[in-house]
Amino acid sequence: MHRSVELEKAYRLLNHGPVTLVTSAHGTARNVMAASWAMPLDFDPPKVAVVIDKTTWTRALIEASGEFALNIPARQIAAAVLEVGNRSGRDGDKFAACQLTTFAAEKIAAPLVEGCVAWLECKIIDEVHQQQSYDLFLAEVVAAHADPRVFDGHWHFADDALRTLHYVAGGAFFQTGAECVVQG
Amino acid sequence: MHRSVELEKAYRLLNHGPVTLVTSAHGTARNVMAASWAMPLDFDPPKVAVVIDKTTWTRALIEASGEFALNIPARQIAAAVLEVGNRSGRDGDKFAACQLTTFAAEKIAAPLVEGCVAWLECKIIDEVHQQQSYDLFLAEVVAAHADPRVFDGHWHFADDALRTLHYVAGGAFFQTGAECVVQG
Repeated sequence: MHRSVELEKAYRLLNHGPVTLVTSAHGTARNVMAASWAMPLDFDPPKVAVVIDKTTWTRALIEASGEFALNIPARQIAAAVLEVGNRSGRDGDKFAACQLTTFAAEKIAAPLVEGCVAWLECKIIDEVHQQQSYDLFLAEVVAAHADPRVFDGHWHFADDALRTLHYVAGGAFFQTGAECVVQG
Repeated sequence: MHRSVELEKAYRLLNHGPVTLVTSAHGTARNVMAASWAMPLDFDPPKVAVVIDKTTWTRALIEASGEFALNIPARQIAAAVLEVGNRSGRDGDKFAACQLTTFAAEKIAAPLVEGCVAWLECKIIDEVHQQQSYDLFLAEVVAAHADPRVFDGHWHFADDALRTLHYVAGGAFFQTGAECVVQG
């Protein structure tokens, strides 16, 4: 289930630091990788920063296409997220291997992953020095979507299966926990 | 309570995307600001990336000193974190105004905030173009510490008061939730 998110609210999809799935496509090739090192970079126009290692197949597809999507997975597909992190797309279609289905993005060729709860379609900003020196990609968010069951401009998690994930290490995630409203 | 963390494990303190308090100092001036847009950038040597707006007093102190610390607050000081985000250090000492106490860092002049559960001492990497164009600071982590009650090389949250926080918007945080171990 997915509905468009206004671009000026797109940063909120990533603001709480969830793990992401980076999808990419070029020609007939496509891939998906897990990335925890992603964050908002600006509000308007919305921008993001993400670290994509030189050795990855995703890196080749992103450099060739100039595009990628950040998909924000929910707990319901946690096992697939972990599996994505353990495979290389060079060994065959990782979506099929990890039993991930996709739907078409609006403004880019990279597919979006079902079972996620938010999606950011991104076009990379041409900053070659940062890409080469730090594996750091800056990109503008050109479209955003979220599952209306959990995001209506703000996140509201009720069903555990739809909670977002925060990756730690060794195959373990923390799910996004209880809301904590404090008196300012 | 704080104990040194080996530098090769320092990324784990930030990997799950918690909100941070950025502390800085130059001469007799010091400041603290809240920042959600921080992430690991590399493992060894550990590096981080953080967005620091041009208009902030913290920015001036970081540019003058070349240093900052990322302090990772726990729920026990959530109200102070929010208060930090609502004030400017130009209006007077924000630590006192927010009732935050500090202790000395090991390798930098910026103070570290009590009530946090992890601390990353950072020296900025000289990348002026990124700082000017994107407010993006890259830095090397030169020392790291964590509260041994919650981090022993991995995070273990038991006491809610010591859980880390993920900032969303409008004065609300999510606390880091239940661990979710999946079969790969």
